[in-house]
Amino acid sequence: MSKDKKILFIPLGGCSEIGMNMYLYGFKSGKKTEYIMVDAGITFPNPEYTPGVELIMPDTTFVEDNLKDVKAIFITHAHEDHIGCLAHIFEYIEAPVYCCKFTALVAKEKINRGGGDSSLVRIASPYPKMIKAGSFSVGFFSISHSVPEASGLVIDTECGRIFHSGDFKIDKSPVLGEPFNSKALRDLGNTGIMALICDSTNVFSEHSGRSESTLSDNFVKLFEKVEGMIVATTFASNLARLKTLAFAAQKTNRSLVILGRAMNNMIALGRESGVIKDFPEIIPPRDAKLIPRRNLLVLASGSQGEPRAASAQLARDSYMGLTIQEGDIFLFSSKTIPGNEIRVARIIDRLERRGVEVLEDTGGRYHVSGHANKPDLEEMHKLINPSVLIPMHGEYRHLREHAKLAKKNGIRSLIVTNGQVAEIHRDANASIIKEVPHGRIFLDGSFLVDEDEGVVSERIKLMNNGIAIVSVLVTTINPYFNFEVNLLGVPTTDDAKTRLIALLEREFENTLSKQKTSLVSNISNNLIETECRRLINTFFKAELGKKPQISVCIHREDHQD
Amino acid sequence: MSKDKKILFIPLGGCSEIGMNMYLYGFKSGKKTEYIMVDAGITFPNPEYTPGVELIMPDTTFVEDNLKDVKAIFITHAHEDHIGCLAHIFEYIEAPVYCCKFTALVAKEKINRGGGDSSLVRIASPYPKMIKAGSFSVGFFSISHSVPEASGLVIDTECGRIFHSGDFKIDKSPVLGEPFNSKALRDLGNTGIMALICDSTNVFSEHSGRSESTLSDNFVKLFEKVEGMIVATTFASNLARLKTLAFAAQKTNRSLVILGRAMNNMIALGRESGVIKDFPEIIPPRDAKLIPRRNLLVLASGSQGEPRAASAQLARDSYMGLTIQEGDIFLFSSKTIPGNEIRVARIIDRLERRGVEVLEDTGGRYHVSGHANKPDLEEMHKLINPSVLIPMHGEYRHLREHAKLAKKNGIRSLIVTNGQVAEIHRDANASIIKEVPHGRIFLDGSFLVDEDEGVVSERIKLMNNGIAIVSVLVTTINPYFNFEVNLLGVPTTDDAKTRLIALLEREFENTLSKQKTSLVSNISNNLIETECRRLINTFFKAELGKKPQISVCIHREDHQD
Repeated sequence: MSKDKKILFIPLGGCSEIGMNMYLYGFKSGKKTEYIMVDAGITFPNPEYTPGVELIMPDTTFVEDNLKDVKAIFITHAHEDHIGCLAHIFEYIEAPVYCCKFTALVAKEKINRGGGDSSLVRIASPYPKMIKAGSFSVGFFSISHSVPEASGLVIDTECGRIFHSGDFKIDKSPVLGEPFNSKALRDLGNTGIMALICDSTNVFSEHSGRSESTLSDNFVKLFEKVEGMIVATTFASNLARLKTLAFAAQKTNRSLVILGRAMNNMIALGRESGVIKDFPEIIPPRDAKLIPRRNLLVLASGSQGEPRAASAQLARDSYMGLTIQEGDIFLFSSKTIPGNEIRVARIIDRLERRGVEVLEDTGGRYHVSGHANKPDLEEMHKLINPSVLIPMHGEYRHLREHAKLAKKNGIRSLIVTNGQVAEIHRDANASIIKEVPHGRIFLDGSFLVDEDEGVVSERIKLMNNGIAIVSVLVTTINPYFNFEVNLLGVPTTDDAKTRLIALLEREFENTLSKQKTSLVSNISNNLIETECRRLINTFFKAELGKKPQISVCIHREDHQD
Repeated sequence: MSKDKKILFIPLGGCSEIGMNMYLYGFKSGKKTEYIMVDAGITFPNPEYTPGVELIMPDTTFVEDNLKDVKAIFITHAHEDHIGCLAHIFEYIEAPVYCCKFTALVAKEKINRGGGDSSLVRIASPYPKMIKAGSFSVGFFSISHSVPEASGLVIDTECGRIFHSGDFKIDKSPVLGEPFNSKALRDLGNTGIMALICDSTNVFSEHSGRSESTLSDNFVKLFEKVEGMIVATTFASNLARLKTLAFAAQKTNRSLVILGRAMNNMIALGRESGVIKDFPEIIPPRDAKLIPRRNLLVLASGSQGEPRAASAQLARDSYMGLTIQEGDIFLFSSKTIPGNEIRVARIIDRLERRGVEVLEDTGGRYHVSGHANKPDLEEMHKLINPSVLIPMHGEYRHLREHAKLAKKNGIRSLIVTNGQVAEIHRDANASIIKEVPHGRIFLDGSFLVDEDEGVVSERIKLMNNGIAIVSVLVTTINPYFNFEVNLLGVPTTDDAKTRLIALLEREFENTLSKQKTSLVSNISNNLIETECRRLINTFFKAELGKKPQISVCIHREDHQD
């Protein structure tokens, strides 16, 4: 390997947050660099910091600037935080997308919906088969996670081999897909791995992770005991969980109903891709009414409290003619993602008021995580035995903890955050060499908005303060100034508008009389707006103790300019 | 006791949520009813459902309607969710307020700040001393909680005795204040308790609660080990915790700095009331710079991620000249209240990026709860042995779980939610007899706003959609319609305003030509507004895929009407 060939790792998302995974690998030879992209994910907005935003994706300016050098996209698995912005980057990119069969169906659906060319999606055969993409060869290494056909990536260049773990857990009986294969990973490790780029999500969980298969008995025990209908929710893409729940229903003589677009869609894709081969019969919601509640299991979308999902609608009222009532059980076979607690609590409250007993995942009886815990990460480190570890998929604290863990076990590590360019050398001297443009782009309606553009921060001001709208008509006929006022989201007394208009009229008369000439045309729009803002601020500071946002519109009929 | 004498329990807050505690007890004799109020608390707003609101308190219409019959207010302890709206109800009420000494200082401060008459605050001597209030006699029964001098209330009327637990935990070595006294409670129980009104906050915690005193050793071990400065945060009112932390600092040769108004204030009140007798020396922040970091413990306000508190400021930058840096430790000796996770996560992220190690309460090493867990509640039930249990302070699910727990142990119970009036009989036939006005009032700026008033829901629409502001001038000179447009929080292209104005002008010309007469004065304001809204909606649906809020102001110079 000549000295001027280098391998680069550039996270554009995922190395400063949990979610929004997007990583570039670069192969630099002389002045030329080729790239492959790994994952194209989104993250979800938060009402406090990103109100009204549909979803958040990485700033891909750097990708757009190097478009012709991006040879291919590899998607490790079908979770939104790994595949969610594929349709958006397909608005400008034209590169083949490689993934496993189930992921490919999800990818095609997304690209089609976005109007892109889904024929670029190609199904990858598993490692040791390698896919050529420019100077890269990439193999899909099957690994266990909470979605079908999740893969790590074996990434080869002239400079050496890298293993990109993808999201993973150690699960030796994962219900769906291949068990975690320690031997295969050790064999992979023995081929010599210069860098392990490794999932950090659960690095703060001290105990070994548990297998998906540990849940089945708990479900059966619960389903047997309950006299009413059971409604369970989980992530729609967790087909292993859906399967476990469905078979527990079968064992306990419960017919299966699936509610919600997301879950029905995922099961259809699971069947189409062949990852679901055996699955109990699903009955349509309308037939459920003919069956005793004791003999029903309903699987419903919306485990994160999404207000329009089946779970939330059931809690409020009904969904497709089904209602939940006293004696029934609602089961969260899921974890609440930070930020969704209040939404979930509202659903729970509604259900409990209906007399429904709500079970959450107390003590891990009804849910297991899809990510490797601290001891599992250590096992992965040992199996792969990399020259250097780069933690990925985590907030800064996760990356840091993961790096510490590696250090403790004598493995060199490097923290790389979004936008940093790391050069990885065979001799394990990985280092940050520069930074490229990075950040967050909001999908706001159908517009892409840069996080610094201010449109969202304007809405944050509106949500906290409301708005006072003043429209001024300037004429040459006395009164020279006519005001119209609208208040939105501003708490006041009924006559506040009238008083504010009176104040504006009075003060503007004074303003006019203070001018050297009493010609209104000498008063500029600038002065009118400044004066309006000052008066409105003063008014509301006294009236309300806080200042609304202000908008001033000016019409001039005084033939100024 | 004659048959026409009855005792009533009316929660106005706290029996449908955790927070906002306010309970009325009524003594009905013939047609006359006398009331006492227990607690006057607030709850905190949430950016998704109550953006821009300062705080939330119970609707007290029922209290205002029965003002002359409210004989006294009893405050069980000084937490905001029990005392936070005292100043607000003092705007209309004039009744004595009874509480223990520490609580009294907090109460007076609040009432003074609100401009009320704080001389009505009276310090209660503990049970068996009883305070007369109309037909009621009330005794303050010392109980352990996470604030000094928390009390349960022994409430006597002719009809019998009730025990109102207040917030409590079972702590036999609480660091500050009296240990939980099983014997005294059993003796109380033996006097015959017709109803136990009992805290439900931690009813879902299966294990027995732990004592405040279990934390000291963990702190000492940690403080010894750390080479840098330690910053710890907790609830400012948890003086026992501050004391434990401060003495752990003293033992490990760390000087003590207190940052933040809330914490300094609570310590001052603790000293003034006498609940803090011994406390290590506190040094001013400016002196901290002269001391090696190894010898510093900083206690900082803001454990819930409040953006303006000392903790958040330290994470961002510095506070009173103190900065936190690599090698230092930031310790959350607290629990994150649901809804605050993202705020807290932002602080953690900022600290970790500075190289500060953040410790949370993993496994209860650095925090214990102030509420009774399930087994502790059972112990309380046994000691008091009431004829009926009414669960309080909880969401509906907590109340329900608490009622189930009582049932399991053979105790009758009744769930009473906010606004319901429960009649409690000596023979344990408690029942709901009617409902009174109840709900939530928002403090919004300095205004009190009813939750149904719509001002907050207007802001929620603004936060999600932004606003398009159109001002129309109608004249008799062609063009007959002049438009000014402002867009706030609406993502669009640069020329959207221009295009929208052009669209409005064009369409309004058409509208005019479609009228039987072409006189603009025949076009009503109503029609103008409707037409503007329709056009703006159509424009933004195509442009943006979502509709902003709309405000239309109309000036008429066409001498209509």
